[in-house]
Amino acid sequence: MLNRSIESSCGQLRGRSIITNALAMELETSPLALPFPEMPPIEGVTLRVARARYKDWDRCDLTFVELCEGTSVAGVFTQSACASTEVELGRKQVNGGTARALIVNAGNSNAFTGYRGAEAVEQIMTQVGEGLGCAPDQVFVSSTGVIGVPLPKDRAREGVAAVLNSAPCGWKDAADAIATTDTFAKGAHSSAMIGETRVELCGIIKGSGMIAPDMATMLGYIFTDAAIAPAFLQEILAEANGKTYSCITVDGDTSTSDTVLAFATGKAGNAQIESWDSAGADAFAAALTDICRSLAQLVVRDGEGASKFIAVRVSGAVSDASARRVGLSIANSPLVKTAIAGEDANWGRVVMAVGKAGEPADRDKLSIAFGGVWAARGGVPVENYDEAPVAEHLKGAEIDLAVELGMGDGAGTVWTCDLTHGYISINADYRS
Amino acid sequence: MLNRSIESSCGQLRGRSIITNALAMELETSPLALPFPEMPPIEGVTLRVARARYKDWDRCDLTFVELCEGTSVAGVFTQSACASTEVELGRKQVNGGTARALIVNAGNSNAFTGYRGAEAVEQIMTQVGEGLGCAPDQVFVSSTGVIGVPLPKDRAREGVAAVLNSAPCGWKDAADAIATTDTFAKGAHSSAMIGETRVELCGIIKGSGMIAPDMATMLGYIFTDAAIAPAFLQEILAEANGKTYSCITVDGDTSTSDTVLAFATGKAGNAQIESWDSAGADAFAAALTDICRSLAQLVVRDGEGASKFIAVRVSGAVSDASARRVGLSIANSPLVKTAIAGEDANWGRVVMAVGKAGEPADRDKLSIAFGGVWAARGGVPVENYDEAPVAEHLKGAEIDLAVELGMGDGAGTVWTCDLTHGYISINADYRS
Repeated sequence: MLNRSIESSCGQLRGRSIITNALAMELETSPLALPFPEMPPIEGVTLRVARARYKDWDRCDLTFVELCEGTSVAGVFTQSACASTEVELGRKQVNGGTARALIVNAGNSNAFTGYRGAEAVEQIMTQVGEGLGCAPDQVFVSSTGVIGVPLPKDRAREGVAAVLNSAPCGWKDAADAIATTDTFAKGAHSSAMIGETRVELCGIIKGSGMIAPDMATMLGYIFTDAAIAPAFLQEILAEANGKTYSCITVDGDTSTSDTVLAFATGKAGNAQIESWDSAGADAFAAALTDICRSLAQLVVRDGEGASKFIAVRVSGAVSDASARRVGLSIANSPLVKTAIAGEDANWGRVVMAVGKAGEPADRDKLSIAFGGVWAARGGVPVENYDEAPVAEHLKGAEIDLAVELGMGDGAGTVWTCDLTHGYISINADYRS
Repeated sequence: MLNRSIESSCGQLRGRSIITNALAMELETSPLALPFPEMPPIEGVTLRVARARYKDWDRCDLTFVELCEGTSVAGVFTQSACASTEVELGRKQVNGGTARALIVNAGNSNAFTGYRGAEAVEQIMTQVGEGLGCAPDQVFVSSTGVIGVPLPKDRAREGVAAVLNSAPCGWKDAADAIATTDTFAKGAHSSAMIGETRVELCGIIKGSGMIAPDMATMLGYIFTDAAIAPAFLQEILAEANGKTYSCITVDGDTSTSDTVLAFATGKAGNAQIESWDSAGADAFAAALTDICRSLAQLVVRDGEGASKFIAVRVSGAVSDASARRVGLSIANSPLVKTAIAGEDANWGRVVMAVGKAGEPADRDKLSIAFGGVWAARGGVPVENYDEAPVAEHLKGAEIDLAVELGMGDGAGTVWTCDLTHGYISINADYRS
């Protein structure tokens, strides 16, 4: 019965007709879902999926991304003290700077599984390395799903053998195969001009619950044909992470397995970007931040039970970092999230969440607005506050909450979703 | 419509037949409720209640506690940066060391009301001071309820006039009158021997949602007939707070108004306790900690939507403070709380919550038990783990969750409740 300990409500694919071993639970596609975008192929990147049957289901749950020789890699990972073997290895592997393959296992996070879990990952790295003729440490592995069950080595071996020989597939198939409790496939695309060369960035991501990335998010992968040095790719990925994945939260619960990896094949033929002084560095960094923001927001749009997508915009903080922490305090507050679920412009709860954030704030300088309408300014309720437009705004699915602290020039935006009966149902009503 | 911004779901008295202005919501008494205990009178303390009608209800909502001359006072307050006027004044008043009166307003927290809120508090202090013939700053005021609506001065004036002339009442009446969303009246009693003198301690408390006291809890009051110097009373109250109020959480949301005050009339006639070297100091501190723990646990037992009372016992941390922070990370995790609501021994979520706590931990030394049965030891699931007794334990209303970190000798216990549909209903389904 070890599969009762799960990372999230794994094994249920909402919006799909999957019946798992212990559970028949079918959830609707998130009302905040976006359609999967058109995404171009990335030269040097080949996608394949297969059925390893890590759970008792009939779906592709093993994803294999083959990367051409010379692909740069960078990554950001959870800061959890109980991180999975995959995360621990990944932290070391990115230091090598190059990658030839990515394997993603869905249905089993392999976290908290000691040496047996580590053996399974090493087996996969060796098997893929032999198949591609590369060093095992150029094979990156991620796993998501049940915590505490070692990844079954026999299923992994057969799955890898199958996927190495399968036909290439498209982005949507890969996005589906890495999903667990996600209710829709998530991908994003951006591009940049580097001199006269146009480079493409494509990314896929999964995540729905246990979302409060500390340095990264559940599992996200970005692929680009740009030529870029690994050290600089790492630098700009970390910077983008601070403004994107680290600014989303569904439930404040940080996963053991959060990982975002960026792979750059160099096939676009641009002059390699080495530093901020290289041509196109700013444009590429902007495109990378753009795709990271899109992917991060997609995770919030699939937040467990979410009915509203909420942008918490904090300004007037003593620093950008302080603004982010105030934003997260608001975005993680159960009372704020339930108020918005109830379409209640309960700014008193926002005052509370600002006050508990542990950041510099002054009650008598604080202003709060919903949908651009100030409810409180300078520490007091606005006289003759007209609630009608605010009530109308809160009936919508896209909520804008602005907080001005009046302390300095720091600003930042955090994205979250509301807290509804759906979250309780997914995580309490159904035994996993 | 400013009363839409509320501190909690104020105005609804669950378990009572109160219909408020905007809302007819009657909630059942918490299944974790305890009966109100027998509590002796404290010499030098006189309780009175009256109807100020701070909301459109027919109940006593103004409490007046008269204290004899020479009463020592100590207090701990929220660390919120957006604290109410009452809290700001209280922080200064306790430095004086003596008190003659306590006024508690229920139904309006008077928080985030600027100068108008401050005027209302000063009016009450002056009016009570004139009535008793004492300095206004010996009159302590607390308020709980709606955030953002200045306490109405006319109702306060009439209420105070009425309560000054009303007949004395008992502890239960006072505990009822300070309540807002509470579903049962909360009181506790302890006693200590100081030399040959027996001293009594009686306390009342209110709180149900917005509970994550940072230095104190919602509103709690302890009265004793012991003779004790204010500075030492402050010292031992702060110490007790660290082990009691600061170790409970319902929803992780820290209020703007958290206050705990201790009043000592000295009427027991013991030799005054001046320091740890005084006779009976240890016994009195133990009795104070005991009553604080009882009161704090009563708040958790009335947590919004709570169906289970959960003790999270953390050992093997690098320090006691680290153990408490790990315990709070577990106790505030929506995924842990919903798992327990679903009677699911989902220890993988406990691993997650330990990992995200930001405290020293080592995945491969971590052990987790429910109801005394180890599910995981030393970083791996227990072989042949028998889930039957754990499942039985989780069906009960009193849950014991033990986490051994294997890092050092630090230990601590945190108390919380589960996260259920009831919490969502109270805070989202009903407009306030």
